[in-house]
Amino acid sequence: MSLRINETRFLKNLAELAQIGATAAGGVNRPAFSEADLTARRWFANRATQAGLYLSVDGAGNQTAEWRPGEIDRPKILVGSHLDTVPNGGRFDGALGVLAALEAVQTIQESGIALPYNLEVVNFTDEEGTMLGLFGSQAFAGSLTAQKLQQPRGGRQQLLEGMRRLGISESGSLTCQRNPEDYAAFVELHIEQGTRLEKANVDIGVVTGIVGIRSFWLTFKGEAAHAGTRPMADRRDAFWGASDFMQAARRLVQGRFYPGVVNCGRIALEPGGFNIVPAAAKIALEFRHGTETQLDQLEASLLTLAQQAAQAHQLEVDVQPLDLVRAAPAAENVMLAIESAADELDLSHTRLLSFAGHDTQAISPFIPAAMLFVPSVDGVSHNPKELTKTHDCINGANVILQTLLRLSE
Amino acid sequence: MSLRINETRFLKNLAELAQIGATAAGGVNRPAFSEADLTARRWFANRATQAGLYLSVDGAGNQTAEWRPGEIDRPKILVGSHLDTVPNGGRFDGALGVLAALEAVQTIQESGIALPYNLEVVNFTDEEGTMLGLFGSQAFAGSLTAQKLQQPRGGRQQLLEGMRRLGISESGSLTCQRNPEDYAAFVELHIEQGTRLEKANVDIGVVTGIVGIRSFWLTFKGEAAHAGTRPMADRRDAFWGASDFMQAARRLVQGRFYPGVVNCGRIALEPGGFNIVPAAAKIALEFRHGTETQLDQLEASLLTLAQQAAQAHQLEVDVQPLDLVRAAPAAENVMLAIESAADELDLSHTRLLSFAGHDTQAISPFIPAAMLFVPSVDGVSHNPKELTKTHDCINGANVILQTLLRLSE
Repeated sequence: MSLRINETRFLKNLAELAQIGATAAGGVNRPAFSEADLTARRWFANRATQAGLYLSVDGAGNQTAEWRPGEIDRPKILVGSHLDTVPNGGRFDGALGVLAALEAVQTIQESGIALPYNLEVVNFTDEEGTMLGLFGSQAFAGSLTAQKLQQPRGGRQQLLEGMRRLGISESGSLTCQRNPEDYAAFVELHIEQGTRLEKANVDIGVVTGIVGIRSFWLTFKGEAAHAGTRPMADRRDAFWGASDFMQAARRLVQGRFYPGVVNCGRIALEPGGFNIVPAAAKIALEFRHGTETQLDQLEASLLTLAQQAAQAHQLEVDVQPLDLVRAAPAAENVMLAIESAADELDLSHTRLLSFAGHDTQAISPFIPAAMLFVPSVDGVSHNPKELTKTHDCINGANVILQTLLRLSE
Repeated sequence: MSLRINETRFLKNLAELAQIGATAAGGVNRPAFSEADLTARRWFANRATQAGLYLSVDGAGNQTAEWRPGEIDRPKILVGSHLDTVPNGGRFDGALGVLAALEAVQTIQESGIALPYNLEVVNFTDEEGTMLGLFGSQAFAGSLTAQKLQQPRGGRQQLLEGMRRLGISESGSLTCQRNPEDYAAFVELHIEQGTRLEKANVDIGVVTGIVGIRSFWLTFKGEAAHAGTRPMADRRDAFWGASDFMQAARRLVQGRFYPGVVNCGRIALEPGGFNIVPAAAKIALEFRHGTETQLDQLEASLLTLAQQAAQAHQLEVDVQPLDLVRAAPAAENVMLAIESAADELDLSHTRLLSFAGHDTQAISPFIPAAMLFVPSVDGVSHNPKELTKTHDCINGANVILQTLLRLSE
């Protein structure tokens, strides 16, 4: 039989870590830079050191624990995730990926197998965005900028205080980029946080990429009119255009852009009276897909639909692009290694997109990277009820173990 | 040739009245209870008195000028409109109807024709809603209530001050209801304030009724979800329901309820984030049609569509009825008199609904009533550019004259 992790040790670690920041509701409250986060970092450092790994902390607070069976400067394979949680989150998001990585590396170390690579377990700082989101993985890959540090979502003052508590600095965070040539690959295990695997009764999701996100303000412009005296046939009702667009966009994405998604989460009608035909309808449009090519096609199709909806109702449409997040496709060789590992373990697997952000999103432009998902019960996540069944946790850790062996071949 | 008005006198009166509250833009600013309104009332009282009519002012400030060729207590035919305007309004809305009534009565008086009815010209107080809307005509018909006086749209304090300026009181306004048996009919000439007559190149619109208005809050209720990770097929997006409903409602009303109208002038999505699938979509629904039966059918059809849109997207819909204005159908005998008058004058005519409120709306449940429209250039109204061509003003006044003769037969 092929090599397997030490289940007892792995589950004991999972249970111990879940006590750090544990809440009465059964979840974990361990936001980045909190006391619980600092405690979890000490706990991880102890475990890694006890296992004989070389512990480092970089300028962004990223903890790495390296197994160096050979020369110090051999290329490395990076594996891990994050230990921080959202406020009142669960026990598995992030933690599972770090502990599976630690367990897999320990298992390989104990097996006496000789590998051509060193293995490095990573705990990235502030993945969840308590302060910034992907803080550590962006710093690691050199995509953190001074501008991002100026306007963190968690507040500038809170970020500075948090960094002080962690013993890191702005300049340190901005200069800790690794040399990508030192790394052969990165692999991350994570819970799905959705129901696709559970519904399909599949053990392992091989993530083909993390979606890019584009957002726009679309403003349909017509003419305000008396909602009584202006005949229906003569109206230029901006909401007619916006609602027509929403229906067409939904059908388009479901019919031609699966598994892409589109959302209109906000809308404002002006002037905004019961008895006034709306002159303007401003909608918040957001859409996601797996590659920049797909996003380009989806954007062009959606904006064409908006023009068509405007024309159909004698309106004009104003298009204002907002933020975007670039799609982060996975490396094919890492996906193949994951699939081969799952096959070795007789686990079913399927390729799917990740629609939420993960550290792999920041790392994949930098190092060949991919990630795998294990099922979330009912898809619940960022919630004390977040649950991944024990056998799925073990499956995920074993796939990480086997993937590391394959990536080392 | 049949009897015609004195065009010179009529046009001179129109021009003189337009000077009271005249604006630099060529319009009229004569809101109810303003100094300009008081001046216009004095002007009207003088003209009526000079013509030998009996002037009265009731507890709501309604001015009536009665021609009494026979006994004082014969039944009367009421004819007129209002002299107040919206702020920065035009020269024709209301004024045309009062002056055409005055001119028609004077012409009949001068003709020596003997009629079985007395004729009463009326200037109703505050039709436009500077304070309340249909203030005078509701008081006349006994539908004004103490509650309406407590919450006037123009402000309670402003109403009280305005009433003091006019020399009227709350108690007087609430007790000046006429005896409907004193009146055989009411007829009102008004500008169309729309483009139907102009587009159809028709001289006279015979108003079949004034639409009723019903309004609702419709709240589509789904489930908030992550706009990335929740697959499209599993979403319960409240905006999908609301936009689907809007499109279906538009098609329904245009296809099956012409000339009824529907409007969604406000919408709020909750929670309201770019990246959150909307859990709730609350829309302001308003619809209008000519009879209570049509309104009942339209309401049932729209609420069915709302249920269907909710079901199609796995939503629920909450229905909250708001204000309503009852439809005010016109009296057939008065419409026939108007049509016969137009035929006598070789004027083309068509039946149509009024989608805006008029004093006839308050009077028609009380006295057999109807109104006629003359064309508005480009449909512009409540605007200094409001215009009805001179020959259309004259046509309207002649139709009023001939209608009064026919109603007296």
